[in-house]
Amino acid sequence: MPNWLLPENIADVLPSEARKIEDLRRALLDHFRLYGYELVMPPMLEYLESLLTGAGKDMDLRIFKLVDQLSGRTMGVRADMTTQVARIDAHLLNRDSVTRLCYAGSVLHTRPSGFHSTREPVQIGAEIYGHAGLEADAEIQELALASLALAGFGEVRLDLCHVGVLRSIIAGDEAARRHEAELFALLESKDVPGLRGLCRNFAPETGAALLALPGLYGGVEVLERARALLGAIPGVARALDELETLARQAGAAATVTVDMADLRGYHYHSGAMFAAYVAGLPNAVVRGGRYDHVGEAFGRSRPATGFSMDLRELARLMPGAERKRAIRAPWGTDAALREKITELRKQGEVVIQTLPGHENDQDEFDCDRAVVWENGNWILKN
Amino acid sequence: MPNWLLPENIADVLPSEARKIEDLRRALLDHFRLYGYELVMPPMLEYLESLLTGAGKDMDLRIFKLVDQLSGRTMGVRADMTTQVARIDAHLLNRDSVTRLCYAGSVLHTRPSGFHSTREPVQIGAEIYGHAGLEADAEIQELALASLALAGFGEVRLDLCHVGVLRSIIAGDEAARRHEAELFALLESKDVPGLRGLCRNFAPETGAALLALPGLYGGVEVLERARALLGAIPGVARALDELETLARQAGAAATVTVDMADLRGYHYHSGAMFAAYVAGLPNAVVRGGRYDHVGEAFGRSRPATGFSMDLRELARLMPGAERKRAIRAPWGTDAALREKITELRKQGEVVIQTLPGHENDQDEFDCDRAVVWENGNWILKN
Repeated sequence: MPNWLLPENIADVLPSEARKIEDLRRALLDHFRLYGYELVMPPMLEYLESLLTGAGKDMDLRIFKLVDQLSGRTMGVRADMTTQVARIDAHLLNRDSVTRLCYAGSVLHTRPSGFHSTREPVQIGAEIYGHAGLEADAEIQELALASLALAGFGEVRLDLCHVGVLRSIIAGDEAARRHEAELFALLESKDVPGLRGLCRNFAPETGAALLALPGLYGGVEVLERARALLGAIPGVARALDELETLARQAGAAATVTVDMADLRGYHYHSGAMFAAYVAGLPNAVVRGGRYDHVGEAFGRSRPATGFSMDLRELARLMPGAERKRAIRAPWGTDAALREKITELRKQGEVVIQTLPGHENDQDEFDCDRAVVWENGNWILKN
Repeated sequence: MPNWLLPENIADVLPSEARKIEDLRRALLDHFRLYGYELVMPPMLEYLESLLTGAGKDMDLRIFKLVDQLSGRTMGVRADMTTQVARIDAHLLNRDSVTRLCYAGSVLHTRPSGFHSTREPVQIGAEIYGHAGLEADAEIQELALASLALAGFGEVRLDLCHVGVLRSIIAGDEAARRHEAELFALLESKDVPGLRGLCRNFAPETGAALLALPGLYGGVEVLERARALLGAIPGVARALDELETLARQAGAAATVTVDMADLRGYHYHSGAMFAAYVAGLPNAVVRGGRYDHVGEAFGRSRPATGFSMDLRELARLMPGAERKRAIRAPWGTDAALREKITELRKQGEVVIQTLPGHENDQDEFDCDRAVVWENGNWILKN
């Protein structure tokens, strides 16, 4: 095997694609900043327990493990930055006030999530800590939709769901509560026969409510149907009200759909959740929602809500960056030439000096102008 | 042990520091681009053989090893990006012309290089491939010095050295050539007794030349002394000429020193090498030089020269970022309020909406203005 072959689902990012990723990264971080989100950079490596704290069980299988030569303990390479940022909020910043944080960086997965998925997504996201009210969810949703607009996606579908609906249904049924994880899995895969089988063990009204969930998807009108079917169950009405507020708030920025059974990532979520879809990709490009209990695991419970996405995937769906215009200049130590080049670069122009012997090289930039010597001066010429 | 403790020499980067790193990262990548350097993003993970190809023997100990669950093969987490970028030039881009590439990203080390060093530097650098002449070294050196100026370092010491001097001395002495690695190690640690002992096995003129090297350090005048002592050895004069050209080229941007025995990283270097030092840190903050033979290992030899540095270390030495001014705005769904906020953000202002109940929160931004409702309008007030 040649020694330059890369592992499966691992790839180099070449200039044109790297440019798109970098531009989008900057645009998003700048946008988050306009809302008051501060950038933090959690490490690539942590002790395994720390990375698993507050994370779902599936996370354990996704994390690459390493032995720390300094302590002999097992470390993991981060596979998700959300819990790392929650740890920073809970312990390092240790503020009582509302804290808005954002982040961007590579994460690694032991296995790709899909056949063509990368094992090295570049995760970018924003989180609000310290506010339990729906206003924080609304701001996060607004920011997520604004991010997709900044990336140039015109048509966005925002899919809403709420962990509180399922949790409220099973709250009064101990048998059902014991099967929570199984219920989430069956709902997520819309496995109605499996769900029907499991529900035989529960109270008839619990089973009926649970079996209603897989059918509760579609436009915002689903909220009305859900209210009619499940509104009497304590807690459900409030969850549906929250979804209605969020649906209204999305406004013209997205087409809103509701799916009562789309509970991916419920492991750490605790309230309203959303997923955003764009043309050209069946999977959600953004996922977000409330996860109030993550900080608890770090010994300091703080309400939390946020979203994240993969910059690589978004950039891949975006149109190609334009070839950048540039200026060619000859090589030389002549002071006047160097001054001319410095001046042009100060104006933001890309000036590429031709190294001796490479006058006929093919250029990657669109060199539409050149610095030339004419009548005793270095001038810019088309 | 609490589950939020981080491994030794691994740290979170909190907002004020993260801001400095991000600002410097952007300033440097933008500056590289003005010279025509294209950004590439090599992966965090590669097969181990690939990461070790063309790298020094010490690299093997610095790389974290992982098992690839898809292939069963051993992968490594990158500890250096230089050889990755050389691989990209050699195979992916596969151009015959001069190629200028730059990169920025985290690398991981199994052990810290010093007591206080991080095991997760953020490496940034630039490389020129395809030109064997000194002009490429000169451009790289200029770019490295410009990078330090951009980071705000006024006083820079540039230390020059050339692998060609040692290689020329031992070229005609087979016994000495067999001990190349040992010689480099003894010179690097300026172990004169050890060097004297080893030299007894070589021809007397080889020994005399080698023993002259540890004393050849100081200002640029060292080049004259070196010429007098070693200039007759084939190849040495040319190497000294190259250093003289580079020393002259550094001009006012740095104080130039020469150290004929500072050969760190000689493993892959092949010509002129440099290290730059700034006040406040005994170790070099930038290292660079020529390494023509790295591409060979990937089956396609291309002349190469470049430099790299650690963004974290540079940012740590820089003065703190100013607290950013911001505007407070109340929470609300009122269309006029939202319009006002959007307008202010479009002007580049940070506008932080106060979530209900958090009116008296301490703010991380310097909120010196507020959006308030006055006489039927939302206005900006100090």
